[in-house]
Amino acid sequence: MLSKNQIKEIQSLQVKKNREEKKTFLAEGIKTVNEIINESPIIIEHIFATHDFIHKNTLKIRQLQIKYTEITEEELKKISIQNNPNQAVAICNYFKARPVSFDFENNFSFYLDDIRDPGNMGTIIRLADWFGINTIYCSPTSCEFYNPKVIQATMGSFLRVGLLYIELNELIQKNNINHVYGAVLNGKSIYKEPLKNGLIIIGNEANGIGEQNLQKATQLISIPANNNKTESLNAAIACSIIAAEFFRQLKS
Amino acid sequence: MLSKNQIKEIQSLQVKKNREEKKTFLAEGIKTVNEIINESPIIIEHIFATHDFIHKNTLKIRQLQIKYTEITEEELKKISIQNNPNQAVAICNYFKARPVSFDFENNFSFYLDDIRDPGNMGTIIRLADWFGINTIYCSPTSCEFYNPKVIQATMGSFLRVGLLYIELNELIQKNNINHVYGAVLNGKSIYKEPLKNGLIIIGNEANGIGEQNLQKATQLISIPANNNKTESLNAAIACSIIAAEFFRQLKS
Repeated sequence: MLSKNQIKEIQSLQVKKNREEKKTFLAEGIKTVNEIINESPIIIEHIFATHDFIHKNTLKIRQLQIKYTEITEEELKKISIQNNPNQAVAICNYFKARPVSFDFENNFSFYLDDIRDPGNMGTIIRLADWFGINTIYCSPTSCEFYNPKVIQATMGSFLRVGLLYIELNELIQKNNINHVYGAVLNGKSIYKEPLKNGLIIIGNEANGIGEQNLQKATQLISIPANNNKTESLNAAIACSIIAAEFFRQLKS
Repeated sequence: MLSKNQIKEIQSLQVKKNREEKKTFLAEGIKTVNEIINESPIIIEHIFATHDFIHKNTLKIRQLQIKYTEITEEELKKISIQNNPNQAVAICNYFKARPVSFDFENNFSFYLDDIRDPGNMGTIIRLADWFGINTIYCSPTSCEFYNPKVIQATMGSFLRVGLLYIELNELIQKNNINHVYGAVLNGKSIYKEPLKNGLIIIGNEANGIGEQNLQKATQLISIPANNNKTESLNAAIACSIIAAEFFRQLKS
C-alpha cells in the first residue's frame, strides 16, 4: 500500500533538482530492477513492486535488506513514467561509474555534443553497450544521465556503459586522441573511408555540432543518403549507423 | 484566439477512434506544416499557428483558402503533443499514399511485424526516406500511421514514404519476393553475408518476429554484438543498422 507521501517522493525524483538534492534516481521494469538487484553494486533505497515481483525476489530482497513495499497495478501506474509499467519501480542511490582509461588507439567511442532528448541519450547508451563501447562522452550541456527517461531507454545498459561529462577540448588533450571524426551532412561517406579507432562527435538534434567543437574534428564524415528531401536522421539513428560501420571495419 | 470547443476538437484527434470517424489527423511544427502547405496534395482543414507563422505564410494560406486561427504560445502548448511546440498545428485530411508497385528485385524494403511504439514507427519511416525506400510494409496489428506521435517522429517523411498494412503472406505471394530476411538474434552476420534486394522482416519490440511470419523468412540475419549482456537493440535502431548495410552493399 502506497502512502500519499511516498507517491510524492517518487514523483519528485522525476525532477533533476530533487534527484541531485537526494542523490537518488528511479529505475523501473522487471528486467532492469532485477539486474540492479543481482548484478550491480548499486544500492537500492526502496523497491515498490507488485506481488509477483516481490514473491519471486523475496529471498534476495531480504538478503540484501532492501526496503520494499508491495503495491497494486493501479498504484504502480501512479509512480511509473511508462504507459505500460512493468511490476517494479526502484529508488536507487547515485553510483560511480568505474573509473575508465579508454584506449582510443584500439577502440572508438562517441562524443555527444549537446544531445538533449533523453530517449536519444538512453538509446545511444544501449547501442554503445551492444557494440562493446564501455564509455561514452558528452558535453556538460547534454541531457542528464539520471533522467528516468534516459535510464528507461537504456534497457539496463546504464549498468555497463559509463557516461562522462567533459569538454571536448579537454577530452582530446587528456587522451591525445589522433582521429576525431565529426558526423555532419556534407562529409566523406563512411562507406568510402577507411575508418580508424578514435572519437566520433555527434551533434545536437536541431543544430548539429557546435562551431568550436567542429573545429576539433580531424575529419568530417557522413551517412550517404538516397534522398535530398530528408534533412537529417534522428541523432540516435545516425549514431547507430556510424557505430555499426566503425564496428564492421574495425572489429568484425 | 482558441475556443474551448476547438481545443476539445484538436485534443480528440489524439485518439484513434476520433481520427477514423472524422478522417483527419494532426501534424505540427514549422517544417512539417510548411511542407504540407507547399509540397503535398494533402488538404488542410485548419491551421492553428502563432503570429510569426501566419505572418510568413499569409499569401499561401489565402491562395489555398485554408482556414486558420492565430493563437498564442500558451494556447499552442494546450493543443500540442510536444514539450516544446513549434509555431503550428494543422488538422489535415487523411490522404492516399501514391499507389506503388515496389520492385523487390532491384530494391529492398521492410516488413514491420507488430511494431507498437509510435516513436519507433515514425523513426523507421524517417530512415526509410533517408535511404530512398519509398514504401514500407507492416502487419495490420502494427501501430497506426496517423498517430500524432508517428507523424511527429517522421519529421515530414510521412509525406514521401508510403506505409502499407498487409499480411506478410499476401505481400510475398503478390510480389513473388525471392529474398525474405528475418532479423533475429541468432542469424548470420549481416557483415558476412552478400545481401540481396528483397524484404527484411523486423519484429515486435518485446517479442521479436511472430512464429508464422518467421517461417516465411528465406534467411535469418543478425547484427553482430560485442557484448552478450545486451539483450537486443531498439527496433528502430536495428532497422537503421540493417538498412544502412543493405544500402552499403547494394546501392553505395
